[in-house]
Amino acid sequence: MEATVIAVGDELLIGKTVNENATYLSRRLAALGIATRRQIVVGDRDDDVAAALEEARALAPLAITTGGLGPTADDRTLAAAAKHLGLELVLHQPTLKEIERRFARRGMKMPEVNVGQARVPAGSRVLGNPLGTAPGIIIEEAGWVLCLLPGVPAEMEYIFEHGLVPYLEKKGYVGERVYEKQLHATGLPESAVAERLAEVALPAGVHLAYLPQTAQVNLRLWGAAPDEETFRERARPVLEAVRRGLGEHIFGEDGATLEQVVGEMLRARGETLALAESCTGGLIAKRVTDVAGASAWFLGGVVSYANEAKENFLGVAESTLAAHGAVSEETAREMALGARTRFGATYALAVTGVAGPSGGTAEKPVGTACFALAEEGATTSDRRNFGGGRDWVRRRASQHALDMLRRRLREKGGGR
Amino acid sequence: MEATVIAVGDELLIGKTVNENATYLSRRLAALGIATRRQIVVGDRDDDVAAALEEARALAPLAITTGGLGPTADDRTLAAAAKHLGLELVLHQPTLKEIERRFARRGMKMPEVNVGQARVPAGSRVLGNPLGTAPGIIIEEAGWVLCLLPGVPAEMEYIFEHGLVPYLEKKGYVGERVYEKQLHATGLPESAVAERLAEVALPAGVHLAYLPQTAQVNLRLWGAAPDEETFRERARPVLEAVRRGLGEHIFGEDGATLEQVVGEMLRARGETLALAESCTGGLIAKRVTDVAGASAWFLGGVVSYANEAKENFLGVAESTLAAHGAVSEETAREMALGARTRFGATYALAVTGVAGPSGGTAEKPVGTACFALAEEGATTSDRRNFGGGRDWVRRRASQHALDMLRRRLREKGGGR
Repeated sequence: MEATVIAVGDELLIGKTVNENATYLSRRLAALGIATRRQIVVGDRDDDVAAALEEARALAPLAITTGGLGPTADDRTLAAAAKHLGLELVLHQPTLKEIERRFARRGMKMPEVNVGQARVPAGSRVLGNPLGTAPGIIIEEAGWVLCLLPGVPAEMEYIFEHGLVPYLEKKGYVGERVYEKQLHATGLPESAVAERLAEVALPAGVHLAYLPQTAQVNLRLWGAAPDEETFRERARPVLEAVRRGLGEHIFGEDGATLEQVVGEMLRARGETLALAESCTGGLIAKRVTDVAGASAWFLGGVVSYANEAKENFLGVAESTLAAHGAVSEETAREMALGARTRFGATYALAVTGVAGPSGGTAEKPVGTACFALAEEGATTSDRRNFGGGRDWVRRRASQHALDMLRRRLREKGGGR
Repeated sequence: MEATVIAVGDELLIGKTVNENATYLSRRLAALGIATRRQIVVGDRDDDVAAALEEARALAPLAITTGGLGPTADDRTLAAAAKHLGLELVLHQPTLKEIERRFARRGMKMPEVNVGQARVPAGSRVLGNPLGTAPGIIIEEAGWVLCLLPGVPAEMEYIFEHGLVPYLEKKGYVGERVYEKQLHATGLPESAVAERLAEVALPAGVHLAYLPQTAQVNLRLWGAAPDEETFRERARPVLEAVRRGLGEHIFGEDGATLEQVVGEMLRARGETLALAESCTGGLIAKRVTDVAGASAWFLGGVVSYANEAKENFLGVAESTLAAHGAVSEETAREMALGARTRFGATYALAVTGVAGPSGGTAEKPVGTACFALAEEGATTSDRRNFGGGRDWVRRRASQHALDMLRRRLREKGGGR
């Protein structure tokens, strides 16, 4: 089963309103096994609404519109649809009574303009709207189903769930539902992920999508199935192949963030973390403390922006700074060692780098970052260059640092 | 001038992704005096992309697509557009070199799959993309202009602003522009802002919109005008009335963030800042170091999540913690004093609170936060409760702390 979603409203076309209604409708339709063939957004003009309806009719047996059912002159959807289909508008007494009751409850007389909202195309089905004055309307026309919904999100959602869904179920339009499984990878760009997974065979009914984020690629396996068990069964060989292909680059599943995964590993091991941040300026601490309950495993951090702070708070030697510079693996190692000792943590991560836009040199261009991880008896370090703007460099550096710890914990047997 | 906006991606049609790209493009086009005639969303299939292009061509002389330019097999826009228009794809050497350079900078060899991103339709114009591998492409075809942009928002926006806008200006497609002036207020909820501004009269051609954010209300004055000077002249009385109505609650203009404003005031005064954060967990430091050049006035901070960190790094007395608890004005004051002394900063801000979801008590419920500002010879403190979830509490607490400093600097004559 396929559908077209039409949103009507000038506010969408001038970019004042994000089209979250279309997202809602498409997501809910997908979950009901109804694929959205196309989304169309048109303005509050009869001809444009009619053109969208014409197009929708050619594309799919179901069309849903949202918006343009209000009482004012710029609400065009109902009139345009009736005109386009050659249907007369007739007064729907139960709706009129309901609208009058709504106004009466607020101690008001219904303005004349609202009478129009009780007029519906002859032969149509009315879906009640307890949250507002515009009802939903279903028009069946030679095998094509057109459903008109209001644009106010809460009203649209209510009528969709309580009016349209039961109708679609009764008509037998509801098909197999869509299930999904997500895996999250880091440390590889999207193209390298794709290359590693080029040979992964997708059985019928299982799709694989790549969703790149900064320093992270989300892999989404999805497909329609009669039930979740069947989907899992179908997806299992793909999941295994993806895991084999990406190995330790996969850090989590189903929406888990890297900081949540690291936190869970530390919590399970009863260990703690401290941070020493220079170029990331508190971003890693912020991410770590985004995790509710982080105080069980996170002791704290130092944002050592000035060199003096690196010396005073972390015990970085003046001679190290003089010999190697603030952005060096040597400084990163001393930062990590200092943070670990002074916070009394099991592990400390340190980052120092050049986030830009200025401060780069030929030897250490903008985007250079040095990392260190200190633990009992061992400190490891490395250096990377992340090209790009300040936010990008900081975000990637924070991801790399957290991933350094995750890999180490994984080696030690702390989880995945 | 009119345009059609086409977004390509299965993620949009299954409702996994909100179509914010279309909103961005339509808003920016409107600001350039170009009306969006229709937005269309199609999936990653050649025929559907081709159908959307066909439709767009009939509707308006300009079409912009976003999405489907990636390196993987499910990226269909470029191939579909070339096929639809009967154009051959040819290798664009400068783009190939640029992609190779991107990988080389990370010490990697370019995967073969990325070569496809350097193929462009014969005779097209390439718009550089310093943020990713997919360039923008402009195809002129018998009076119709088609521009292909990637779907990653930052890349799309960059190419739109730096590649497409100059092209449209040169072609004379840019009409009467929409100008705007923004004012940013903090410390008042939206309803209080609206109440204070209820009497503000709006002259013809000037509109006023309220855009609430967390702990901030942005006021946007906008309108179409032949030139900026005319708009400014029209908007001046409104601006003055808004300033009178909101007074010191207005902290900045035209997109300035609170951290930028505070940084600018400190820079102008040659003064410095240190931080001591508990519940905000590095968020204030992160915001402060979002500002490029922050190292001129930001010395660093301590994220003292554990009580021991408050004692060891900030010198908070064990007796203070025992008598008043970690979340108290007394502890906040000692944190600020300790940070100020140990970093050697002009000012230090401290925050300690209960971000939740757990950890609240009857006396100090979730959302309670205590603040202190230490400076030469004086330390001030206060306590607030911000109801709401963890992110909300942290964001509001970070805003309140920065605003404490801004108000103090304003008193001392550091700027607005």
